[in-house]
Amino acid sequence: MPDLDKEFIASRYRAIQDHICIKIAEADGECANFEIDEWDRPEGGGGVSRILQNGRILEKAGVNFSAVSGSLTEPMRESLKIDGDQFFATGVSIVMHPHNPYVPIIHMNIRYFEIDDGTYWFGGGIDLTPHYVHLDQARYFHTELKTVCDAHGADYYARFKPQADTYFYIPHRAETRGVGGIFYDHLSGTNESEKEALFGFSCDLGLLFPKVYAKLMNDNFDKPYSNREKEWQLIRRGRYAEFNLVYDRGTRFGLHSNGRTESILMSLPPQANWVYNVEPESDSPEGQTLQWLRQTNDWLNLQ
Amino acid sequence: MPDLDKEFIASRYRAIQDHICIKIAEADGECANFEIDEWDRPEGGGGVSRILQNGRILEKAGVNFSAVSGSLTEPMRESLKIDGDQFFATGVSIVMHPHNPYVPIIHMNIRYFEIDDGTYWFGGGIDLTPHYVHLDQARYFHTELKTVCDAHGADYYARFKPQADTYFYIPHRAETRGVGGIFYDHLSGTNESEKEALFGFSCDLGLLFPKVYAKLMNDNFDKPYSNREKEWQLIRRGRYAEFNLVYDRGTRFGLHSNGRTESILMSLPPQANWVYNVEPESDSPEGQTLQWLRQTNDWLNLQ
Repeated sequence: MPDLDKEFIASRYRAIQDHICIKIAEADGECANFEIDEWDRPEGGGGVSRILQNGRILEKAGVNFSAVSGSLTEPMRESLKIDGDQFFATGVSIVMHPHNPYVPIIHMNIRYFEIDDGTYWFGGGIDLTPHYVHLDQARYFHTELKTVCDAHGADYYARFKPQADTYFYIPHRAETRGVGGIFYDHLSGTNESEKEALFGFSCDLGLLFPKVYAKLMNDNFDKPYSNREKEWQLIRRGRYAEFNLVYDRGTRFGLHSNGRTESILMSLPPQANWVYNVEPESDSPEGQTLQWLRQTNDWLNLQ
Repeated sequence: MPDLDKEFIASRYRAIQDHICIKIAEADGECANFEIDEWDRPEGGGGVSRILQNGRILEKAGVNFSAVSGSLTEPMRESLKIDGDQFFATGVSIVMHPHNPYVPIIHMNIRYFEIDDGTYWFGGGIDLTPHYVHLDQARYFHTELKTVCDAHGADYYARFKPQADTYFYIPHRAETRGVGGIFYDHLSGTNESEKEALFGFSCDLGLLFPKVYAKLMNDNFDKPYSNREKEWQLIRRGRYAEFNLVYDRGTRFGLHSNGRTESILMSLPPQANWVYNVEPESDSPEGQTLQWLRQTNDWLNLQ
């Protein structure tokens, strides 16, 4: 293995972005194409945003790569509780919004952060937001995540699953955003082989993504639905926009630090609706979904 | 005039809410009805939310009244830089989203805040968000606002118009939300007649609202439009949602302080769209609107 320096990590993440776009475009259909939009950051570095709009299965999907560097500002030092002059950050961020309400929304992020004093850490997460929660689907998703976690750390799933429940939560709705997943941050090691292991974990997550989501697309894209399911999807997408704009740390940090707005807000749904005071019957499919979202679930051990 | 105590102010604001609903329902059409949703706040007080959905001209309109009281929390003391134990707050908040892209979105808020140590202040604002900016319309709107301002303070318009330009600004888009209006806060007096004058200003703004907006509805609701204008409207509504969820102080304070979510988020559009990297031709109507929004305009003195 070559030196695990920041250039290598960034180039591997860039390759993972390409891999994901190829696999997801394949799953979407023959004509699918993730358009390429390269951008520079005036303060240092840049990125490649790749967007698919109006695909066969996906209505709007963004796969964003960035590798940026620059001077640490005082607010960054304070909020991250670090010293040092220069930072480097690279990562891949994904959000996909399907046409069919029975295909879930998905999000993934893997990232690496490094300071010129030698400090570094990995962070990331993946979570699934079905418009209609189905136990089997949530269990499948969490089983796949646990398999990747287990291969890298016996306690990873047990640590990172609850962190996703905490993170992907919408306090003003008293709901989770979806069925959760895993979330981790500030993972760093004390020697090179620990760093390689953490990097390997983030890459394996990146490679798991298209496998899991292609299956969820294939399994659900041709399920019949009516206006009722479409309307519910649009309302759930409104919640997704609320979470990202009000709480998501990456989104808010990006918007408040003069990040590239179009790449940051790529995560927003192609269309979202807000209807006053919607409260579905508790025994309807929509009401049952809300029940799942209003509690924390141990998906792997539910009957 | 009876004592200008908090109960009187609240009852007058409540009456202004009713007046606005009657006048706007009249302008919308025979079948328009603002439904009444009363709610209590567990910590003290409550409110009345009035909602019109799927009217003839208005797609979604909310007129919210609230009068709440309770103990000041430490974060409130710090953020407001005040002492005291108990607070009382009452106000009327309005956002209206029309069907026709040529009818502008409008927002208004008038509010009164009081601490048990005798401190009080008035705040409020009104701003217009046309999907397509037209100079004549913006000039009419600002002329009406200036007339009310002038009746109460020779310097009001000159002070409050720039405050609206600053407040209703979307930094991550480098755009104003619309053509602005007026914004004021922390207005208080040193004697009863000054308090009456400030209260009178807020009431006059409340009474101006239906006059101005009924005219804007009537003038524009039957203008023909195509998919192109509708799509642009939905994108501009996305910006509106971004402003409210990312920056608006009232929205964020409400969401973070366990306010009544459905009443707070009444302001969100019935439908909003996000399309990647939309950049209209600069000489198109959409591009010209963006040019207006990307600069500060002295609407009353433009040719």
